[in-house]
Amino acid sequence: MLTLAYLIAITAEAMTGALAAGRRNMDLFGVSLIAFLTALGGGTVRDILLGNFPVNWTQHPEYIYLTVGAGLSTMLVVKLVHKLQQLFLVLDAIGLVAFTLIGCNVGQQLGYSPVVVVMAGIITGIFGGILRDLLCNRRPEVLHRELYASVSLLVALLYLQLQQWQLDGDIVLLASFSVGLLLRMSALRWHWRLPTF
Amino acid sequence: MLTLAYLIAITAEAMTGALAAGRRNMDLFGVSLIAFLTALGGGTVRDILLGNFPVNWTQHPEYIYLTVGAGLSTMLVVKLVHKLQQLFLVLDAIGLVAFTLIGCNVGQQLGYSPVVVVMAGIITGIFGGILRDLLCNRRPEVLHRELYASVSLLVALLYLQLQQWQLDGDIVLLASFSVGLLLRMSALRWHWRLPTF
Amino acid sequence: MLTLAYLIAITAEAMTGALAAGRRNMDLFGVSLIAFLTALGGGTVRDILLGNFPVNWTQHPEYIYLTVGAGLSTMLVVKLVHKLQQLFLVLDAIGLVAFTLIGCNVGQQLGYSPVVVVMAGIITGIFGGILRDLLCNRRPEVLHRELYASVSLLVALLYLQLQQWQLDGDIVLLASFSVGLLLRMSALRWHWRLPTF
Repeated sequence: MLTLAYLIAITAEAMTGALAAGRRNMDLFGVSLIAFLTALGGGTVRDILLGNFPVNWTQHPEYIYLTVGAGLSTMLVVKLVHKLQQLFLVLDAIGLVAFTLIGCNVGQQLGYSPVVVVMAGIITGIFGGILRDLLCNRRPEVLHRELYASVSLLVALLYLQLQQWQLDGDIVLLASFSVGLLLRMSALRWHWRLPTF
Repeated sequence: MLTLAYLIAITAEAMTGALAAGRRNMDLFGVSLIAFLTALGGGTVRDILLGNFPVNWTQHPEYIYLTVGAGLSTMLVVKLVHKLQQLFLVLDAIGLVAFTLIGCNVGQQLGYSPVVVVMAGIITGIFGGILRDLLCNRRPEVLHRELYASVSLLVALLYLQLQQWQLDGDIVLLASFSVGLLLRMSALRWHWRLPTF
Repeated sequence: MLTLAYLIAITAEAMTGALAAGRRNMDLFGVSLIAFLTALGGGTVRDILLGNFPVNWTQHPEYIYLTVGAGLSTMLVVKLVHKLQQLFLVLDAIGLVAFTLIGCNVGQQLGYSPVVVVMAGIITGIFGGILRDLLCNRRPEVLHRELYASVSLLVALLYLQLQQWQLDGDIVLLASFSVGLLLRMSALRWHWRLPTF
């Protein structure tokens, strides 16, 4: 299930990257690169920080094709994408939650302590979007809009907590996933935000 | 002594990160993340560049709590912080010098050549601030204000030079530290700058 | 031959970095750092992504001196540089093509699959420029101007294709190099661009 969610996730993130790059007048190559970075950048930063070489996508060339393809296709159907904005936000939320859970998993398999595992989850969840915004020269969206990064944090904490209760692995995964998705969708629906200063 | 200076350093850097993030209307999460990155980003970039895995903070979860806590507390007492700006600049200067010396140490322990050791010191000293400014979407402050990065360079060079004279390790450390701190404070006091073009 | 092209490449890239930093009112230190990052940043990102430690320049301190020296000299002769803009663009094109071929080589020696090898070439070719533009807080030039990143892609593909035909290594190198250089120069001459959206 997580693999399917992962494929949806990188496709959706590649599309957000392509849209942002398109709005900044990047050319075909810029769109492809930013789609790729948005989709796979979070996992890359995580792998490098945790010393987890080789970096995941270098062993899965199909992810490169998928994300670049998704980015370029987005440009072809850019009007349709704007119409489907609701669907798009759901896909992006699936992406955020799936990335976070995968990141936690990787951190655990490498034997890091819980707080680093949580960081690994968050980094996987949000750094793709941060890199996208850096390259598009704008303030990182994930840090000042409706709950986004915080959803990632809560999903990671919930996931670790549920594991402690020795439930079945699939149930833990499904529960964390559902709560995270619900939380993000609610935040979007009712414009929940964290306080700013 | 260096450990104490290091703790002061990451606390002070986390505070500068939080202040910058707060000024950009980031939410609670953004403030925490940027506080963390500003404080520990320089050491992280150094560890990755030098292939020094696992990255330092992943083995010291207490640093994560300390920096995030310092960032969030800063937001609570933001008015006080502005009043204490002088103290704040001293703490930041301690941070710069301590980071530089620690970076040099790490480089030496890994057996790199002197010029790379100097680079390791500078990178540890200034990259936290550079990452902060990147994420806040502004021009890196450390590269065009009163002597800052150059203090880091001079401290690193002095440190290596003093070591050559086979003085006691603590004396070398203390001397480099004092000279660096004095230099940075003087630069702030009399607005010393490097020429621009 | 590739080594000579590499030395020309890092010198030229250091100069473009210094010019960009100078235009943003960076001080002497900022100019040196950005010259260094522009010249050696692409290879550094490649080495880190591919887990190729120690990172190349840490073993070649002379590259640090060369790039910092080139950056600072550029500032001394900045008017001359503007007059020699044509020459400068040729050097930069040599840099792009040489970096790409070197990046492909490194990827192959580490045993990565062809698509990752191509990515290694492109990353080496363009990430120095991307880092320069990030630090100068502007939109990455390489992603929305005359064919640049795409030249890197084509050179990498051509290089891998020619290798399949089992030609002599030097001929493959020379052919890829010439085609890439010609393509970039033509793009500049006739303002070839990729479509934007």
